[in-house]
Amino acid sequence: MEYCFGVDIGGTTVKFGLFSQKEGLLEKWEIPTKKGSEPTPLLKDIKVSIEECLSKNGLKKEDLAGIGMAAPGPVTEDGCLRGTVNIGWGDVFLGKKAEKLIGVSPVYIGNDARVAALGEYTFGAGKEVSSLLMVTLGTGVGGGVILNGKILSGASGTAGEIGHITMNLDELEQCNCGKKGCLEQYASAPGMVRVAQKALMNTDKPSVLRNIEVLTAKKLWDAAKKGDALARELTEYISKILGVAIANACYIVDPEMIVLGGGVSQAGVFLLDMVQRAYVENVFPHCRDKKFALAKLLNDAGIYGAAAMVFKQ
Amino acid sequence: MEYCFGVDIGGTTVKFGLFSQKEGLLEKWEIPTKKGSEPTPLLKDIKVSIEECLSKNGLKKEDLAGIGMAAPGPVTEDGCLRGTVNIGWGDVFLGKKAEKLIGVSPVYIGNDARVAALGEYTFGAGKEVSSLLMVTLGTGVGGGVILNGKILSGASGTAGEIGHITMNLDELEQCNCGKKGCLEQYASAPGMVRVAQKALMNTDKPSVLRNIEVLTAKKLWDAAKKGDALARELTEYISKILGVAIANACYIVDPEMIVLGGGVSQAGVFLLDMVQRAYVENVFPHCRDKKFALAKLLNDAGIYGAAAMVFKQ
Repeated sequence: MEYCFGVDIGGTTVKFGLFSQKEGLLEKWEIPTKKGSEPTPLLKDIKVSIEECLSKNGLKKEDLAGIGMAAPGPVTEDGCLRGTVNIGWGDVFLGKKAEKLIGVSPVYIGNDARVAALGEYTFGAGKEVSSLLMVTLGTGVGGGVILNGKILSGASGTAGEIGHITMNLDELEQCNCGKKGCLEQYASAPGMVRVAQKALMNTDKPSVLRNIEVLTAKKLWDAAKKGDALARELTEYISKILGVAIANACYIVDPEMIVLGGGVSQAGVFLLDMVQRAYVENVFPHCRDKKFALAKLLNDAGIYGAAAMVFKQ
Repeated sequence: MEYCFGVDIGGTTVKFGLFSQKEGLLEKWEIPTKKGSEPTPLLKDIKVSIEECLSKNGLKKEDLAGIGMAAPGPVTEDGCLRGTVNIGWGDVFLGKKAEKLIGVSPVYIGNDARVAALGEYTFGAGKEVSSLLMVTLGTGVGGGVILNGKILSGASGTAGEIGHITMNLDELEQCNCGKKGCLEQYASAPGMVRVAQKALMNTDKPSVLRNIEVLTAKKLWDAAKKGDALARELTEYISKILGVAIANACYIVDPEMIVLGGGVSQAGVFLLDMVQRAYVENVFPHCRDKKFALAKLLNDAGIYGAAAMVFKQ
């Protein structure tokens, strides 16, 4: 029972990791995600892929402590995956379904952002703390809360969804979720571009950003690092909104550490420092003293966290 | 071991309850709060008061399962009370100090708003749910999160402090905490009065509020109930800010129920419905389906919650 699989189901690919309790990640690979109205075809692909890996390594299903799975939708505490817009499924108890189909038990299931947070907590940036909030800055803004080694799922499976905290009651444009003024509209990669494009239209300030044909969040942060004044002003503004949103979340769960992950966080220490400074300047005194760190596991956080769900039981 | 005391230490009075595990609250009373730079004098008063009650009821300290205490300051998970501005103490492990001084063990200690939330969870509005967020609308806006029967304290003892969520980045006036734009500036009793007074200055709309010499939150809600158009508009506005703040908190901890308590919540179902409607209109779909309830235990929530800390162990 020393082994497990960590499986991270994304909209495009399914990532796999074979883990040993003693030696950690032994092998990783990925396959394309089979979409459809229900998960059976994809689970069959996962079964084949796992069985191939076992036989290649001279292992049997009996050697497994279980399988952990991350999926892109809310997951309730009792294991109901409540719709995965990107893949096409409705509500499904994916763990139970997978146990039957794959013939391995138990199969744990969690939301991908929350599972990534558990990965960072167990194997990455949060190894030394007892609680953390992870904020993932990518196409959207995702999040996860880990308290004493466990994912906080919540009654509806949405605990940790910091991206939809309302930061501006006067926002006129709509977020993907249908609301207006969500953090995601300012701090996701497209949100940052939106903020920058509006500013470029509304001011005459000179900026290297004006010469960029297709503006991206990366190019915005790169320009700020190189000292472009407007880019700097914009990243300060975005960091303030992000720092205040993190403070808002901290009033509620008050974790020991904040971990910033996702593609945009590759702007690195420059971004981390700016967000932490904004946090400290805008949070009330008793909550000021928090650790801030960049995610360490990057694209592997999901499979690591999925393995942690198995080994932590 | 069937008995315990629940003690709620406030800025003005200390409330006591003698509880039996079978029969609930047997007796309650209060004494004035002795202020000072450290808690020994007050703990001695508590000791005398508890010993009198025991002897009057023919009970001994050995009959006690313990004492629960609520105090007006952040309390960390390991029991450090981090300063109580209203009473004058610095950081203190109040439970351990009380155990020695009173000669009863264990003594549990929690933040007053969080302990009140535990009271509602165990004996009041939240008896049927597994998690709740309580929001206390009074002189300030307090809050507490209960997850699976336990108070969420947080790394700094500030988990549940919904009153300091930033709701308006453009606010110019300062909150008591030193920040600007906190929920408390709009949804505490003085915050509601502030909002109303500003509106009365900035508009010519007729309103019965103009004839009130000393405007209070209660008078504002009463006027709204009686159909005053401006009062109605203002309570809708306040409810929107409160509903969005509750939604912001729900994205992070996603509880099963929201309980509204504190003096202002005595505006009753009229207020509850307005806040719940604002919540539903402003929250993202997966989180929409939450129970809303008014607090039931009112001023006794603290002693009930303090007793629950003892009996739940």
